Amino acid sequence: MLDRNKNQTFKSELRQDLVTGEWVVISPKRKKRPSTPFIEAHYRYKEQAECIFCDPVKSHQEKDVLIYYDGNKRWIVRVFPNKYPAFQRRNSLNKKLHGPYLTEDAIGFHEVVVTRDHKRSLAYIDLSEVAGVLRAYQERYIKLMNKKFVDYILVFYNHGRTAGASVAHPHSQLIAMPFVSMDIQKEIWGAEDYFLKNRECVFCRMVDQELTEKKRIVFQNEYFVVFCPFASRMGYEMWLVPKEHHPYFERLEQGGRDKAAEALKEALSRLDKLLEEPDYNFYLHTSPCDGRIHSYYHWHIEILPKYSTWAGFELGTGIEINTVLPENAAEELRLIV
Amino acid sequence: MLDRNKNQTFKSELRQDLVTGEWVVISPKRKKRPSTPFIEAHYRYKEQAECIFCDPVKSHQEKDVLIYYDGNKRWIVRVFPNKYPAFQRRNSLNKKLHGPYLTEDAIGFHEVVVTRDHKRSLAYIDLSEVAGVLRAYQERYIKLMNKKFVDYILVFYNHGRTAGASVAHPHSQLIAMPFVSMDIQKEIWGAEDYFLKNRECVFCRMVDQELTEKKRIVFQNEYFVVFCPFASRMGYEMWLVPKEHHPYFERLEQGGRDKAAEALKEALSRLDKLLEEPDYNFYLHTSPCDGRIHSYYHWHIEILPKYSTWAGFELGTGIEINTVLPENAAEELRLIV
Repeated sequence: MLDRNKNQTFKSELRQDLVTGEWVVISPKRKKRPSTPFIEAHYRYKEQAECIFCDPVKSHQEKDVLIYYDGNKRWIVRVFPNKYPAFQRRNSLNKKLHGPYLTEDAIGFHEVVVTRDHKRSLAYIDLSEVAGVLRAYQERYIKLMNKKFVDYILVFYNHGRTAGASVAHPHSQLIAMPFVSMDIQKEIWGAEDYFLKNRECVFCRMVDQELTEKKRIVFQNEYFVVFCPFASRMGYEMWLVPKEHHPYFERLEQGGRDKAAEALKEALSRLDKLLEEPDYNFYLHTSPCDGRIHSYYHWHIEILPKYSTWAGFELGTGIEINTVLPENAAEELRLIV
Repeated sequence: MLDRNKNQTFKSELRQDLVTGEWVVISPKRKKRPSTPFIEAHYRYKEQAECIFCDPVKSHQEKDVLIYYDGNKRWIVRVFPNKYPAFQRRNSLNKKLHGPYLTEDAIGFHEVVVTRDHKRSLAYIDLSEVAGVLRAYQERYIKLMNKKFVDYILVFYNHGRTAGASVAHPHSQLIAMPFVSMDIQKEIWGAEDYFLKNRECVFCRMVDQELTEKKRIVFQNEYFVVFCPFASRMGYEMWLVPKEHHPYFERLEQGGRDKAAEALKEALSRLDKLLEEPDYNFYLHTSPCDGRIHSYYHWHIEILPKYSTWAGFELGTGIEINTVLPENAAEELRLIV
């Protein structure tokens, strides 16, 4: 067998699919990133002593770009550049043709947001700490959104090994990228299209419908509603959506942030209780920072537990088969407290 | 906790995402399908004595719709309706509005293609049996393609638990569905667009490039080439593509079928050797059977090993991060024999 670790000096590049026009990131260096052994059974948490995120600076991670402390001057949240970035800062954007195939530098930023506690995820840490995490997302978002070549920033969280977390210590990530992907563009266009046809935001319409019908609601407070979407792609999928129309996550104010933190913690802890600590992903969808106005969009968070496997049919068609009625999922999540 | 098994009588339905317009299949009945315990370690093969696919008719599966025998009158390949169909035969297509949300009957067909041997997958059975499987795909495809409400048929294979196989005995599936999904449409439009701009099929162009460059080729014979696509979404992804322009899989002739079987068996057994029996999916992309002419499309098979996990970034953007250079993957797969 060949040495699979050669090409270490190869920087991440974007390659365009010649048929669909969609991009992929080719990033061999990321294969070298450490993967902490998860403890089996309750397999998310490896021994704390060896954890590279308990003290990120000591464990040779990059220097913090943001740090929050509590009243006792202990750090609570810290953000630092990913040591194995999928997208990387560069001064110019190179495009190249290889025969008919197009490549581009995978230019951008890739950061890690770590909370202090090694074992407690966002479902279990104090509400104020969850609010701190959202504040960190927002602060870093605002820093990165006006950088050159940044058209979209995705904030996401991988919880557990089967959800793609390579390090067990709870952490989120921000990736700032030089284009808006087709899937996100599809949502943006869908929202624009609905707005032009109905003179109404499609997410506002959904929120209205959910608040009226009530049967897919999991939790709500003054500003936010968590519900299982009518067309859930995954069993126990939840969306956390501002009740009022808000296109831009980065404009969230403190009062809203505290309420978003409450709703997020509620959603995740109900999921944990009901499905007995499943692995899951969540990500934040907001308007692109591509210099255009996106007043018809509506930011929100999508939570996808690893409830079932997307197999050949899903991969081959992009159509998900969900075996859980969203109305049943919501009822279970609502009653689990 | 509520009884998650209620709503057993609920038939599969399609629900449309209000934002993107994409459909999902909500199919609670499929949750009741048996899941055979896989043996850990080499975990694909459970005890043969309890296998529901070793004698599908005895184990209360549906009646065969197709069966092939060998010279000794032992069955080699059999096809029967999936007992827990995601798409189901119906006489009329009902659409309903629930507030702003649209649903449609999940009308169609869902069949299972089983080979005789309980333990040997397509990588290990005789070449003539692999050719038999392709012939069964084709024969059933031709039967289903002209049925009312059938616009697309996906043939796919889930290998191993993490690739979504619920039964360990090797089997493929056909799903005939009443619409062309957006992901497939994206490919169809991409091919059409390329053809109109370049007066050439985009897949033919790729085949040319691969045969010239050689460095992403894994295997080739007279009619087919297997290569790691330039923009591979997954480590060790392979595409099996006819060298000549062929829009329609169902028109494949016996000579071509035998060569396709050889190329498929080669691809899968090289993958098995190199990655030590990974789980994987493959699916067949061909022109829709929606009554339109698709002369610019080019059928092929895409093979996706479960080499890494698509996590929050992939789910949130649709952009995959692949940590294996396709050129390296192809070299390893080419040299492994």
